[in-house]
Amino acid sequence: MCELLGMSANVPTDICFSFSGLIQRGGETGPHRDGWGIAFYEGKGLRSFHDPDPSCSSKIAQFITQHPIKSTQVISHIRQANVGSVNLENTHPFSRELWGYMWTFAHNGQLEKSIFDWPLVHYFPVGNTDSEYAFCWLMDQLRTEFPVRPKSSEQLSQFIHQCCEKLRAIGVFNMLLGESNYLFTYNTTKLWWITRKAPFGEATLRDCDVSVNFKHETSVTDKVTVIATEPLTHNEKWNKISTGELATFELADLVGQIFSSP
Amino acid sequence: MCELLGMSANVPTDICFSFSGLIQRGGETGPHRDGWGIAFYEGKGLRSFHDPDPSCSSKIAQFITQHPIKSTQVISHIRQANVGSVNLENTHPFSRELWGYMWTFAHNGQLEKSIFDWPLVHYFPVGNTDSEYAFCWLMDQLRTEFPVRPKSSEQLSQFIHQCCEKLRAIGVFNMLLGESNYLFTYNTTKLWWITRKAPFGEATLRDCDVSVNFKHETSVTDKVTVIATEPLTHNEKWNKISTGELATFELADLVGQIFSSP
Repeated sequence: MCELLGMSANVPTDICFSFSGLIQRGGETGPHRDGWGIAFYEGKGLRSFHDPDPSCSSKIAQFITQHPIKSTQVISHIRQANVGSVNLENTHPFSRELWGYMWTFAHNGQLEKSIFDWPLVHYFPVGNTDSEYAFCWLMDQLRTEFPVRPKSSEQLSQFIHQCCEKLRAIGVFNMLLGESNYLFTYNTTKLWWITRKAPFGEATLRDCDVSVNFKHETSVTDKVTVIATEPLTHNEKWNKISTGELATFELADLVGQIFSSP
Repeated sequence: MCELLGMSANVPTDICFSFSGLIQRGGETGPHRDGWGIAFYEGKGLRSFHDPDPSCSSKIAQFITQHPIKSTQVISHIRQANVGSVNLENTHPFSRELWGYMWTFAHNGQLEKSIFDWPLVHYFPVGNTDSEYAFCWLMDQLRTEFPVRPKSSEQLSQFIHQCCEKLRAIGVFNMLLGESNYLFTYNTTKLWWITRKAPFGEATLRDCDVSVNFKHETSVTDKVTVIATEPLTHNEKWNKISTGELATFELADLVGQIFSSP
């Protein structure tokens, strides 16, 4: 299993605070020693860092916590390998281009081996994880259903939800999927979110002795949503995404929730 | 115009020495202030860094020169913008997945605007440069010609050469294109290469006051080929790639040369 961290913001924001907490779980406060990665969107552009080394001792991870990269959307992952060996090509997040957008994906959970029999047409995995295979299948489904990008994000969310439900049927599928403005998040077992906006307070990380008073870091119109497999702070109220729910965020706002049919 | 730097090696090798020279051209000894990027292959895995800031003052570029990343194939680019604004999505090298390999591309030169009318089917640009458009067209051509990867690298080289010739017909097209083991390099106006192997000597960078004695850095079986738009050292003999030539390198060895028909 792995840890996921996502961010969706209405202004370019650095994620140093949350990322500092997450990387401690990569071998320090958690068992996720098998690499980590983080992808930052700046407009349609994507900047990503991958490292098969444990995040708690990674020099690149330290660099990122010390040199804030401002972004409106971030997808990050630290890995505890179950399927696929520990190497660069198996390190999340994975990216593929669709409709002239770079789509980025990170997965927490494990899928049945039968996933590797699902047909692929357009996108093929570079590594050998169930996660990257599922991502290629999901991109394939989207591309086949919509040869051009649908105008409505609701239509996109509905279809992504249908695909996620099929994946959940063969295992645990907690997911972050983004393309620059929209962040699609799907939960099977654990996925939490919080939106920070004015009036900002102080937050304290659960994983290391760091507090930040967001009042000093932000302006009154800033809004930042953080999504994670476990709440990262212990003095704020986090919202749980339901099992089988796809929650869609656009520049910090929750713009859609699609639930599993009973 | 821009600067290109590529490396193909038979063992994981760091490119700090050559990269130290290249980044000086990003605003210090050269006019290429409009961003830079570098992609490292480790097996089939790809690790890339992009920065729209000048390389000579980039903190990420400094980090890379100080923390050697060992790789068997590197593609790097520093940019002086002509087509497309200065932002992350227009920063080379560009990458796309084909046949389960991540292909990486960097271009020096400029193409006629008519490139934007060339038809695209599978791959679409995220930014708005002539370079990324040409890369998408090239990947499209490869995918259409070879639905599955051809076994022979010769066949691949022949077809890539044909595509490059079409691109050269509408402008300056100096290119580095890689997929992990093979590095395809094509020249219109300037592209040089050198293979360093035992007995190793000392090399001195042209762009800054750095010398390195490769004898102390390498073992006797190591082979490293460096490809660049200008020779990076002034006390070694560099080989010129001809106009219209595609030179293919595999783990440091020049394995193919295809020339333009007279």
